[in-house]
Amino acid sequence: MKHLILLRHGQSEWNLANRFTGWTDVELSDKGREEALNAGRLIAASGIEPHYCFTSYLRRAIHTLNLALSSMERDWLPVVKDWHLNERHYGALQGLNKAETAKKYGDEQVHIWRRSYDIAPPALTADDERFPGRDPKYSALAADELPLSESLKDTIARVRPCWEELIVPALKLYDNVLISAHGNSLRALVMMLRKMTPEQIVSEEIPTGSPRIFTLTDRLEVIDDKYL
Amino acid sequence: MKHLILLRHGQSEWNLANRFTGWTDVELSDKGREEALNAGRLIAASGIEPHYCFTSYLRRAIHTLNLALSSMERDWLPVVKDWHLNERHYGALQGLNKAETAKKYGDEQVHIWRRSYDIAPPALTADDERFPGRDPKYSALAADELPLSESLKDTIARVRPCWEELIVPALKLYDNVLISAHGNSLRALVMMLRKMTPEQIVSEEIPTGSPRIFTLTDRLEVIDDKYL
Repeated sequence: MKHLILLRHGQSEWNLANRFTGWTDVELSDKGREEALNAGRLIAASGIEPHYCFTSYLRRAIHTLNLALSSMERDWLPVVKDWHLNERHYGALQGLNKAETAKKYGDEQVHIWRRSYDIAPPALTADDERFPGRDPKYSALAADELPLSESLKDTIARVRPCWEELIVPALKLYDNVLISAHGNSLRALVMMLRKMTPEQIVSEEIPTGSPRIFTLTDRLEVIDDKYL
Repeated sequence: MKHLILLRHGQSEWNLANRFTGWTDVELSDKGREEALNAGRLIAASGIEPHYCFTSYLRRAIHTLNLALSSMERDWLPVVKDWHLNERHYGALQGLNKAETAKKYGDEQVHIWRRSYDIAPPALTADDERFPGRDPKYSALAADELPLSESLKDTIARVRPCWEELIVPALKLYDNVLISAHGNSLRALVMMLRKMTPEQIVSEEIPTGSPRIFTLTDRLEVIDDKYL
């Protein structure tokens, strides 16, 4: 038996400010840091020892992992960071206040951008200061690898190679793997693990700071799935 | 041209308590965390962009790296953790107060343990609670891979495979590499880089929290070496 532990980052400063975040690289709030430390305590208390960890390129997920590892006294565990695990890219909505955006475009339109499966928000242009190609994190990537906006479907398609090429091989080598990431990149993993439909995944809510443990067969079929 | 940045962890709680630390996994002090953040600011201001990082299995070096990366806004850089970069193992002296040890064994004996090249302190026994084989960090290693005490010469012999098998290949692939480690594991790297004699290396002092930049040719010959 193997275990995959999924952990959504703790509360960020922009969750507090009610802004669309996406790839904006915001810090954890004090509450978010507390959630991360507590997640580590829950994992330690579960008795399941992670052997290998993954996280995104965004500091709210990286710091959540670092803090959880610290309260588990497992700071030394190997960690691979991959931008494919980043949050869904929110396009030209990134940085906007959610209430103001609803006033401008209407609640229904914002609901479609937030909760549909295959409709992306308006795209960034390459001359926008929010274009990911301007960020040193992504400077090694070609412009056509970088999203300008994503639907959940796009995010899932982008997470899939990380699952197939990095996470599955790690689960074959190591019994227990821990992933600290984001609401939508974790939805992508949950959809693949549980073989969910688009209708099912859009209504799947993943709470912050709550480790979710999938128990898997050696062939990576799900036996059980629960929050700690 | 390539750059190798060496960073000794900031002050730890046991530097404050004047105890022999070695492989004891103590936390940074508040001053140590400040030193680490400041080291990141110095590296960022140097204009040299690290591409790949190494650290030890000990949290004072891991946290120093995490804090430095955070103040550089480079949290997303790849980090490899390797126990071969740990501090020199201080054997049965680990945990003892330095002043009490000097009273018990005499100043001269303690000076020999601390400053000779090839004399190790008294060894731990495998039934000692400080034996590294009891620590989950090292549970995958065979007992004969784990030190019971080390001279500086032993530490250098243990660091060498990490240099040859991990750091040199990283320097061939990436221009700039950052290593956060310990006084004696960094001495090992300095000795190899500068082709120093045992007499020279024992008197080399490496200050905490001060990034030291080696400028190297593509064949990894040292052109220049300075603290930021």
